[in-house]
Amino acid sequence: MPESGIGRRALLSTALAASAIGVAGSLATTSCGAPSANTESERSRDRSRDLASEMLQVDADGNDVKLAQLRTLIDTGLPKTTAPKRIIVVGAGPAGLSAANLLVEAGHQVTVLEANGNRTGGRVKTFRGVFSDPALYAEAGAMRLPSAHPMVLALADKLGVRRRQFHNVDVRPDARSAEPVPVVYRSFTGAEWSNGPAAPAQVSPAAAGRTLIKVNGQCVDRAGYARDPGAVHRGFGVALPAQARIALNQAMSRTQVSADQPIDHQIEGWTDVFNTYEDFSLHRYLMRQGWTLPQIEAVGTLENLTSRLHYGVISAMVDHALIRPDATYWELQGGTASLTDALTRKLGPALAQGKRMTRVEHTEHGVRVWTTAETGNEHTDGAPIDPIESFDADYAIIAIPLTSMRFCTFEPMLSYPKRRAVIEMHHDAATKVLLEFRNRFWEQGPHGFRGGGCVSDSPNRFTYFPSHTDDSDGGVVLAAYTWSDDAMRWDSLTDSERVHFALAGMRDMFGPVVDTEFTGIGLSQSWQRARYALGEAVIPTPGQLHEHHAATSSVEGRLHFAGDHTSLKPAWIEGALESGVRAALEVHQR
Amino acid sequence: MPESGIGRRALLSTALAASAIGVAGSLATTSCGAPSANTESERSRDRSRDLASEMLQVDADGNDVKLAQLRTLIDTGLPKTTAPKRIIVVGAGPAGLSAANLLVEAGHQVTVLEANGNRTGGRVKTFRGVFSDPALYAEAGAMRLPSAHPMVLALADKLGVRRRQFHNVDVRPDARSAEPVPVVYRSFTGAEWSNGPAAPAQVSPAAAGRTLIKVNGQCVDRAGYARDPGAVHRGFGVALPAQARIALNQAMSRTQVSADQPIDHQIEGWTDVFNTYEDFSLHRYLMRQGWTLPQIEAVGTLENLTSRLHYGVISAMVDHALIRPDATYWELQGGTASLTDALTRKLGPALAQGKRMTRVEHTEHGVRVWTTAETGNEHTDGAPIDPIESFDADYAIIAIPLTSMRFCTFEPMLSYPKRRAVIEMHHDAATKVLLEFRNRFWEQGPHGFRGGGCVSDSPNRFTYFPSHTDDSDGGVVLAAYTWSDDAMRWDSLTDSERVHFALAGMRDMFGPVVDTEFTGIGLSQSWQRARYALGEAVIPTPGQLHEHHAATSSVEGRLHFAGDHTSLKPAWIEGALESGVRAALEVHQR
Repeated sequence: MPESGIGRRALLSTALAASAIGVAGSLATTSCGAPSANTESERSRDRSRDLASEMLQVDADGNDVKLAQLRTLIDTGLPKTTAPKRIIVVGAGPAGLSAANLLVEAGHQVTVLEANGNRTGGRVKTFRGVFSDPALYAEAGAMRLPSAHPMVLALADKLGVRRRQFHNVDVRPDARSAEPVPVVYRSFTGAEWSNGPAAPAQVSPAAAGRTLIKVNGQCVDRAGYARDPGAVHRGFGVALPAQARIALNQAMSRTQVSADQPIDHQIEGWTDVFNTYEDFSLHRYLMRQGWTLPQIEAVGTLENLTSRLHYGVISAMVDHALIRPDATYWELQGGTASLTDALTRKLGPALAQGKRMTRVEHTEHGVRVWTTAETGNEHTDGAPIDPIESFDADYAIIAIPLTSMRFCTFEPMLSYPKRRAVIEMHHDAATKVLLEFRNRFWEQGPHGFRGGGCVSDSPNRFTYFPSHTDDSDGGVVLAAYTWSDDAMRWDSLTDSERVHFALAGMRDMFGPVVDTEFTGIGLSQSWQRARYALGEAVIPTPGQLHEHHAATSSVEGRLHFAGDHTSLKPAWIEGALESGVRAALEVHQR
Repeated sequence: MPESGIGRRALLSTALAASAIGVAGSLATTSCGAPSANTESERSRDRSRDLASEMLQVDADGNDVKLAQLRTLIDTGLPKTTAPKRIIVVGAGPAGLSAANLLVEAGHQVTVLEANGNRTGGRVKTFRGVFSDPALYAEAGAMRLPSAHPMVLALADKLGVRRRQFHNVDVRPDARSAEPVPVVYRSFTGAEWSNGPAAPAQVSPAAAGRTLIKVNGQCVDRAGYARDPGAVHRGFGVALPAQARIALNQAMSRTQVSADQPIDHQIEGWTDVFNTYEDFSLHRYLMRQGWTLPQIEAVGTLENLTSRLHYGVISAMVDHALIRPDATYWELQGGTASLTDALTRKLGPALAQGKRMTRVEHTEHGVRVWTTAETGNEHTDGAPIDPIESFDADYAIIAIPLTSMRFCTFEPMLSYPKRRAVIEMHHDAATKVLLEFRNRFWEQGPHGFRGGGCVSDSPNRFTYFPSHTDDSDGGVVLAAYTWSDDAMRWDSLTDSERVHFALAGMRDMFGPVVDTEFTGIGLSQSWQRARYALGEAVIPTPGQLHEHHAATSSVEGRLHFAGDHTSLKPAWIEGALESGVRAALEVHQR
């Protein structure tokens, strides 16, 4: 392989071929905009087309990038190398772990540097061994895997990590969950990929509709809301023609591009949409769709939009297009960390923990990464944080959040577009408060339910219940799940205050039973306050996706970049894995 | 006084008369929109006119609200009451303290409940007695008082708190600062108010222009930037016709309404502006003004906009109109807390500390406020937080941030618009890192300067230097002052990490001298992480000002509301004082 750099656009093309073909290009200056664009409006349209192609995962030659990535990660791995490279991977989240494993298996000499001394996984984190019932565990981070994400589902299956249904909507306590069947991915090319023999789809149990909606002092269950949405809507002073979810889906669908047309038509369609709405916030988009402020308040409260109204609408459009409202969801038995644990075990001695990157020196000959010796954990520091150890390699894959790169020194400094992305890209806050109960009181009685979530206008906002029982009478409830401004309110509080107020919010819905059943064990996770994550995930404000997205994954000399933030699926493991495969292939091909 | 409720719009009118005239109105349902508005566009225009009138501080009869407030706070106080009321004031920040003092002096029976056990002042907080040189102190919160804020300046003078110039722009180390002269307020009515005999204006020393701008790897001083802005701008890949500050002022001035016209014309002018731009973010506004993305990046970096681009432009317009670019600034000797300390001393035994409100019961007959016994401080909790003590009164003034109201229970619940404001109003993050140095090395040598601030694209962003020497060879530097996303990056870190990285940022500008002169004492203040503040201040996202502002100060039964967030000067002491006077008058007049 020539030691030439390859630009990001080219990578979308090469990533799809498991055989490695070098593409010439300039380093760190390659932009996604076609070089022919002369006016700002042409550049804008080029950026929109790049985003549309990336969202649909189509490379410049019309090939399916996703299909190639699935084959690489699940079926073939990278080709074995004949010229092993020394490669440093920084960050042992799903992106770094998947890239490192692919490179190790291809014969490269890999070192993974992870800041956390006591775990890998990044924002995949399962609380285990901390509840009074040792059978119980709960998710501090990623908790549900949508059916629209074949890569993470197939990877779990391949690694022998058992998955089971995550009931995003509540079911009856005795309902029989669907069993997992092999993952099938149908490409726009007509090709079909599967990680096992075709099996008949399992039927998900019917929704029970017994979880609660408590807003404006009124409390109804979801079935009651579906029967008579007007009663709830009147609390917001509005009349809506349908349930909030339906109204929102209609509003978002109005600008969706049909997938029942040739892929180049889809690309052009999404290019138009992205170009029209690149500077739109979700708030402005809904106003443009004719919504009134009270309507936005009502739907925003019920469907978790109120704190996200000022974010760019394109992210919401992409999410809406990629994860359909009728998606099924899966969780991993033993916790989501079972997946990253399995990847970590495969990696073996290549992993070095308690080493936090604070400085990177890179030349045309190689890379040197300086790390501190971390003695604290992700919330509390320990010893002084001067870099004391260095690691040399031919290439590095930086697979940590942009926010943590903000406190790293790069010598020479990164390119202008990359620096701007590091400085400016907005990251969301997300906070969870988890409470352990001795008995699953919510499953009992004629109104009992399993899984699903309640919504309220209390600080708790969203309350999710366990989908499975895990050989315990008890259960851990995600009492408060909040994002953005809703989460920031919680982030100001201490752990014990969060537990106190989250319990109060549950008492408000379920009564004093929460006090008698609470084991006294409550935990919280503020991703904003986690000092190695520094936020939940990228969520661009209007204009930022166009301005910064391409730079998040651009190659800088011998530095490559991975992480969910480099994909159009931020906050999702699927996006992290896509980026891991891409970055591994980039380095492998050099 | 009749015990009738008075709506907010009416209050703007009554507030101006030091003599109390009751105005009938309905409680908690009075909206700022004129009742005649039938269509959404009429309602929008009414909201815009309300904001314009409030910004210009004109009541419905064309009187000057500010003038009346100044007279009440500084000259006359409230009239003595003949029927003393029992009044609880919640929160001992500038709003609560000023309201409480006015009510005490009028003869009412006042109790002030403050959560902090060890200080008053709210987001006015001076670090004292914590540096190695006991003569030194530094501001964790409010630090500069613009000449456009007569109320806070006159109050300091009245209370005998000495003020001196705050050099927002650096001067020569030997420059002679201007001495304070009596505050003069010139009303649009032609009236002039002053708190002392007219004195000739003092001349501020000339700017030295020696503070640094370090962006994109280039470092120049401000004088050099003024001489040749192009060199700095090329680092951003743009050509700008002028310095960033000038370009920004021009862009903001383009929609400003001239103050050289009758006040009703000004109101109509601002009504048009606010109505046109109510849904505009600053980003969208600048794009509409013809700015390109690279221009926004350049000016945004140099003038502290990059992390605020997604916020509503109206707030920026109001700030720009009220605090002119050529404003002079003042600081208080002994620290800004000298002002709130003086107000606290005047209050005497009416203050009860370590009592945090978590529940309010209110009926047509009275108010009961429940408090916890706080044993921790604003960053760390102590004992359990169940409410254990209650206080009864005829009325309450709630003068705490909306964010802290989010975790209070109101029985009966607050009105729908108030609840929405509590839930949704966006609050900014702001974080300061302060470092103590043995010697003021920045004042030494041919390039030495005093006061002013450096700007960089490092995490530090803005670095401010002390304006005065305080009988010490050393000085405390505000090494990193950040807001919004810039601050959120720091908020994820621990205190000691913040000190470490802030020192690194200063080393990057000033070299190793920072290490030899650093005393080892560094402190940081994240207002987002302060558990009684839960944020720096309100900064509305597009649409929020129209949607929520009126509700922030609306009266709810026997509950009145104060705080900078109820004014159009959020984050400023001046806005808090205006609200304190307003709320005190509201309760006094019932």
